[in-house]
Amino acid sequence: MKARVFVTLRPSVFDPQGQTIADALHSMGYGGVQDVRQGKYFELDLDAATPDAARALAGEVADKLLANPVIESYRVEVD
Amino acid sequence: MKARVFVTLRPSVFDPQGQTIADALHSMGYGGVQDVRQGKYFELDLDAATPDAARALAGEVADKLLANPVIESYRVEVD
Repeated sequence: MKARVFVTLRPSVFDPQGQTIADALHSMGYGGVQDVRQGKYFELDLDAATPDAARALAGEVADKLLANPVIESYRVEVD
Repeated sequence: MKARVFVTLRPSVFDPQGQTIADALHSMGYGGVQDVRQGKYFELDLDAATPDAARALAGEVADKLLANPVIESYRVEVD
């Protein structure tokens, strides 16, 4: 079963990488891009019997390894 | 208007970062995680009048800067 995990910096945490991308886009003429936040995206191939089991496993893995809960939050989607 | 861009390595491209994460999870006891692919995730705040305009702008920005089309593909979602 496939799960997707999206990890993003918490809104209060400054994102210099996203800011650099936004600045680069402005200098390329894309003034319509007001803000950019960069995050991480993971596709997990899970051995789970049910979508609920897959969601629980993906959440545990995100908590333990994929995200740093101090500065990041995550969201899980299961097919 | 918010747009989300997901950038992933093409399936034929080896993903050592994802492989390392999968190996780490196996050594932590998560044998149920069969495979991991890591990608990038961007949240764009766009000055666009319509969802179609936002989608077009996000796609152009992804083509020009966010993704390397030789080895990566991307997907755009607009609220």
